[in-house]
Amino acid sequence: MKNIKLTIEYDGTNYSGWQNQDNAVTVQEKLEEAIKELTKEEVKLIGSGRTDSGVHARGQVANFFTNSTIPGEKFKYALNNILPGDIAIIESEEVDVNFHSRFDAVKKRYRYRIYNGEMPRPLYRNYSYHYKYNLDLDKMREAAKYLIGTHDFVSFMGSGSVVKTTIRTIYKIDIQKLNEFIDITLEGDSFLRYMVRIIVGTLLKVGNNQISADEIPRIIEAKDRHCAGPTVPPQGLYLEEVYYPQKTS
Amino acid sequence: MKNIKLTIEYDGTNYSGWQNQDNAVTVQEKLEEAIKELTKEEVKLIGSGRTDSGVHARGQVANFFTNSTIPGEKFKYALNNILPGDIAIIESEEVDVNFHSRFDAVKKRYRYRIYNGEMPRPLYRNYSYHYKYNLDLDKMREAAKYLIGTHDFVSFMGSGSVVKTTIRTIYKIDIQKLNEFIDITLEGDSFLRYMVRIIVGTLLKVGNNQISADEIPRIIEAKDRHCAGPTVPPQGLYLEEVYYPQKTS
Repeated sequence: MKNIKLTIEYDGTNYSGWQNQDNAVTVQEKLEEAIKELTKEEVKLIGSGRTDSGVHARGQVANFFTNSTIPGEKFKYALNNILPGDIAIIESEEVDVNFHSRFDAVKKRYRYRIYNGEMPRPLYRNYSYHYKYNLDLDKMREAAKYLIGTHDFVSFMGSGSVVKTTIRTIYKIDIQKLNEFIDITLEGDSFLRYMVRIIVGTLLKVGNNQISADEIPRIIEAKDRHCAGPTVPPQGLYLEEVYYPQKTS
Repeated sequence: MKNIKLTIEYDGTNYSGWQNQDNAVTVQEKLEEAIKELTKEEVKLIGSGRTDSGVHARGQVANFFTNSTIPGEKFKYALNNILPGDIAIIESEEVDVNFHSRFDAVKKRYRYRIYNGEMPRPLYRNYSYHYKYNLDLDKMREAAKYLIGTHDFVSFMGSGSVVKTTIRTIYKIDIQKLNEFIDITLEGDSFLRYMVRIIVGTLLKVGNNQISADEIPRIIEAKDRHCAGPTVPPQGLYLEEVYYPQKTS
């Protein structure tokens, strides 16, 4: 029995997110179907975590067990021949049988892309959030500093989520402007449901002078979703990379 | 009667190109429908030229005549409220009644985007051409120099096209690499059918050492489509800008 680790890029536009659910087309389902077509085995693909409907990934990680004789590094070519064009395996390898995509992940990096121009941009409509109001990036960076570190992020969690703890650690928030695009990159040990999108929604309120940067500690301490900003839409969000403690193969 | 000039961005993925045709959804049709909904007038939109199925535009130009009292610069907002998300007016203005998008155009700039990495990239599948083989950009730049100037470009014209003359002038071909993307930008007085995509297909053969750069003059002189390279696919092509001799308003 081999444990195969996949690194996956997908365009989330036409999927109801990563995780399998009834009456919806998901990325996990498409991958499991492709693996079945290739290996003739029913596999349960273990993802590093969910992504929501419309969210993209540049480096989602998942693993599965197989008796196939296909070498680990060849799975990417074989699966890409089967997968639809909006999902591709960018890396595949055989890893230790104990490797688990979700439990072993120690850090994740997300990026949120804002298009900050006035007029709509059809070419980026599914790949960024069109926010046309002025933004003070220095104030957003100042606000972001208060979020770094270990906090109870329950104010930044979407409703309907059941988790053991809402304490998370954010290592880094980087805000970069390139032409009319603003990329907000976040690294953390893991993220609560909608956490990245609510943090971005809150930073936008700071950048647009609706709240001041030094209100962030109060929002964290309130432990109340209503104190944070809105959940920005999914199409600007990318799961960029999932980190593991050491080489897993 | 006012003459309104529109500058248009569109994602060509889901359209059968710019120009109206039976049993196909086109960008021109969607725009004419939106103008009709706004002004209650049946208009004939004059485009600067066609773009083929799957080709994108960042700066297509078109004009139409209207009795509407809407100020020229307001059309963009009004039309964007009606248009589907994959088409947007980025500029609108009232221009001289004699302005004609096609006849008055003096220069066009196209860009062709190649993704030159090994593995497929779902996020760019509709916005670039995945060419995974090695490319020698210096050889491609050397070949491009032979194309600059006024030539009979019939070797680089798709079949089924009827034109008065196949003589065209190319002002500039620029080849830039950014990470795994290669952008080929072409400026010319106008372009024959498929001309940009056949030029790019020919430059790729040079870059991949299938033909040498100094064979370009021979290909031009042959006046035979079979001597040039293949027509590369449409999704890498962008009509970037259409130039007019002076400010038209």
